[in-house]
Amino acid sequence: MVKEGDLVIIYFDEKSEFLLEVRKMLSFSTHCGNIKLADLVGQDYGAEMKTHLGKPYYLMRPSIFDLMMKVRRQTTIIYPKDAGLMLLKTAVGPGSQVVEIGTGSGAMTIALANAVRPQGTVYTYERRLEFVENSKRNVGRCGLAEYVRFRHADVAADGINEKNVDAVFIDVPEPWAVIGAAAGALASGHHLVSLSPNIEQIKKTKETLEARNFRRIEICEILVREMLLRHTGTRPRERSITHTAYLVFAQKTTPA
Amino acid sequence: MVKEGDLVIIYFDEKSEFLLEVRKMLSFSTHCGNIKLADLVGQDYGAEMKTHLGKPYYLMRPSIFDLMMKVRRQTTIIYPKDAGLMLLKTAVGPGSQVVEIGTGSGAMTIALANAVRPQGTVYTYERRLEFVENSKRNVGRCGLAEYVRFRHADVAADGINEKNVDAVFIDVPEPWAVIGAAAGALASGHHLVSLSPNIEQIKKTKETLEARNFRRIEICEILVREMLLRHTGTRPRERSITHTAYLVFAQKTTPA
Amino acid sequence: MVKEGDLVIIYFDEKSEFLLEVRKMLSFSTHCGNIKLADLVGQDYGAEMKTHLGKPYYLMRPSIFDLMMKVRRQTTIIYPKDAGLMLLKTAVGPGSQVVEIGTGSGAMTIALANAVRPQGTVYTYERRLEFVENSKRNVGRCGLAEYVRFRHADVAADGINEKNVDAVFIDVPEPWAVIGAAAGALASGHHLVSLSPNIEQIKKTKETLEARNFRRIEICEILVREMLLRHTGTRPRERSITHTAYLVFAQKTTPA
Amino acid sequence: MVKEGDLVIIYFDEKSEFLLEVRKMLSFSTHCGNIKLADLVGQDYGAEMKTHLGKPYYLMRPSIFDLMMKVRRQTTIIYPKDAGLMLLKTAVGPGSQVVEIGTGSGAMTIALANAVRPQGTVYTYERRLEFVENSKRNVGRCGLAEYVRFRHADVAADGINEKNVDAVFIDVPEPWAVIGAAAGALASGHHLVSLSPNIEQIKKTKETLEARNFRRIEICEILVREMLLRHTGTRPRERSITHTAYLVFAQKTTPA
Repeated sequence: MVKEGDLVIIYFDEKSEFLLEVRKMLSFSTHCGNIKLADLVGQDYGAEMKTHLGKPYYLMRPSIFDLMMKVRRQTTIIYPKDAGLMLLKTAVGPGSQVVEIGTGSGAMTIALANAVRPQGTVYTYERRLEFVENSKRNVGRCGLAEYVRFRHADVAADGINEKNVDAVFIDVPEPWAVIGAAAGALASGHHLVSLSPNIEQIKKTKETLEARNFRRIEICEILVREMLLRHTGTRPRERSITHTAYLVFAQKTTPA
Repeated sequence: MVKEGDLVIIYFDEKSEFLLEVRKMLSFSTHCGNIKLADLVGQDYGAEMKTHLGKPYYLMRPSIFDLMMKVRRQTTIIYPKDAGLMLLKTAVGPGSQVVEIGTGSGAMTIALANAVRPQGTVYTYERRLEFVENSKRNVGRCGLAEYVRFRHADVAADGINEKNVDAVFIDVPEPWAVIGAAAGALASGHHLVSLSPNIEQIKKTKETLEARNFRRIEICEILVREMLLRHTGTRPRERSITHTAYLVFAQKTTPA
Repeated sequence: MVKEGDLVIIYFDEKSEFLLEVRKMLSFSTHCGNIKLADLVGQDYGAEMKTHLGKPYYLMRPSIFDLMMKVRRQTTIIYPKDAGLMLLKTAVGPGSQVVEIGTGSGAMTIALANAVRPQGTVYTYERRLEFVENSKRNVGRCGLAEYVRFRHADVAADGINEKNVDAVFIDVPEPWAVIGAAAGALASGHHLVSLSPNIEQIKKTKETLEARNFRRIEICEILVREMLLRHTGTRPRERSITHTAYLVFAQKTTPA
Repeated sequence: MVKEGDLVIIYFDEKSEFLLEVRKMLSFSTHCGNIKLADLVGQDYGAEMKTHLGKPYYLMRPSIFDLMMKVRRQTTIIYPKDAGLMLLKTAVGPGSQVVEIGTGSGAMTIALANAVRPQGTVYTYERRLEFVENSKRNVGRCGLAEYVRFRHADVAADGINEKNVDAVFIDVPEPWAVIGAAAGALASGHHLVSLSPNIEQIKKTKETLEARNFRRIEICEILVREMLLRHTGTRPRERSITHTAYLVFAQKTTPA
């Protein structure tokens, strides 16, 4: 049942879907008509509703994918296609202590916070104050703020406070500058993931990781191919995103 | 620190890595020499070790990816590239109640159990007894058995016991035959994911979902492109897996 | 040396390039300034030139790719990535007699005419008169009209005049409706290629080909991944075309 | 009608197909039985035939794709998926004068010779004598020898004899070492294509091309996705080639 303060997806069709916070005072206007948010409170998820113009929509429970994709963006975000594999290429789960370097708009922070709650914590570092503020709002809106410590700091210069964390996630333009700090924070034998859009970045990241005794380094990219099942026929989407980033996976070792 | 009963990755190089359960009684033989498992107890993860032939290896903490890929396989498994997005396209997290239809070898069961523990539960249904037995061993070896209820049952014939669950994951050859039961078990507004290798399957799955009032149906496939950063040069791997399955995502609605 | 009537590429940079016919009477205006076409006559290809505003450009020889991509489009065209493989999956070459069913805007007709000239001929069939007219202009502009016979006809209803041709290329919405006529026109043992955007189309095409004694049926799609080598780094283009069509290849057999 | 000396495809099924030269004296043995080649002479292409064991096969006309893929390989070959686009990204056609640097096993030489015949010529350079000998046999078997001049020479050291050619195709490990010679041989405004498997190679190739006044430089790779239409269902092939080479396209300019 939808309660005040919940995030919901208002779904008209594949081209018109909106993530909203339910606030009794407010109404939401679309090209399909208006919705009084007070009317949503007490409804079951999945309910078919109508705008004041009689246009039907569904009241949907948001997925983590939705929460990530619909953050207010001040930066490029980490896409769920990448985040999904990043989570599985570590041993992160409920209770994990995780460091994220480069909060950006907080999309990955949301995925991490959901994965480690309620006992775990995400320590997320961001150099630019406006990104810290924006990502706090984005994470807070999802009800995940209590699992996240936002750090306004430059990891390359100031280092990382935490020790012995379960995993480190890096999304900064110069990953090599923070790998020393990351290695200091990460438990031995555990996983680090870094992502970068360019080949030159992943080469330099890999070299720095090797020099810091990271091993089992693997690099890939993830591509999503959307399929359209129309009444006119079945085929892949004709234009799409074709590159976001390369993912670099590694594990910290302790030389003999 | 590695304890008896832990799962560890023995990592020689990218072509020689092994997932092992540490048992004091046992030793492990490779083409690089023997390892007494008793010697691993008390070591730190990440430690550089040597076989009796002096060949070095690392004692690595397994990722969820490792646990999934190294199950004993009696069936095709759900690959982590697919599982990662499947998890994020639902609202699954710690505490979730999840139904899985088609346990198979238990790879996805492991990913789900790790995501919902310690309060959540995975109810996983499998028609074939030998798959139930094998997946139990696979999940048990990962220390995740307490978060999973294994059901030896034919969902198409016998239905699902649970009601109002947070998400349903389907991996059976005829998803349309279990969507009725899935719809009965799933909370309204919540997410269902089904995966199938063939186009005909996803078409019939989509039609059945629509008839059962599922909406927001989206279909895609996920491709991984591994990058090789060799001293001879940087390039994608030359031969790889190019298709596993199409993923069908949908949400249950309640018509007005 | 550029002569009056030649087609040239005016190349400013990757975002500003134009295919033009050199006509002494005319001038060409761009956001970078004006070009008097008379000034181009007598220049060498590759020459660096300037607009009246002093903006430099290069006078480039068009490739077949350029001629195809820059046709005036009334329809979706066959892309060079697909056309290139289509040509090689037949035995077409100088002197070949080729039938094309579905002239469309004439992009493939241009590639075929260039491949078979000067002794060969492309017989191209199109049902819609406005497409015939437009493709004639497109092919004529490339100086290839003499190698092409344009047929304004509905192959499904009226059949094909030619017999014993070396290859047949099909690009119509219902390939199965013209395969009988195609089989009648094609020499035994020779190649047919059909392209369609949807799965349902290629399934029905394949079934019809099998029923008509075509064998060695192979189906694929071709994807181009553009790489950007910027001073900021090397990476694939971020958004691109991700689907045009599936290609169906087959050879006509004569049962014993 | 098949004549002595013709190349034919013996096609049993998708896993058993052979390219053969028809020689009356010879017979051909397969796991499906023996074929007397004398029996093929005078048959029509497309004919359904039988081995001495009664196993049926088809006598198919080879495509250019077949001729390329079935060369005797001493090197990695240029694949038809790449060759097709390479041909269209130039203005090569009947009558063209073309230089190829790096004959390798002659697969691309075959595609070029077929495209430029009968008036055009392919001048193909190869440093290693055994590759020259092997590619001569491969090209000769296809009946294309008269359109090709084989040059046993090291272009980086010895340069290129021809001047003002219509296009240059490069497939050597160090393209930058031959770009000077290529620029000297190529007509101004015309097209050069180079292919390399590694990112580092294409970066250095691009830099060298720019320094040599090549412009309109474009880089891509081509991926083929084979679709399987089985009675069990429709899906992409599960394992395939995922990388061959990056293609670098450029045009020679003459600075003002």
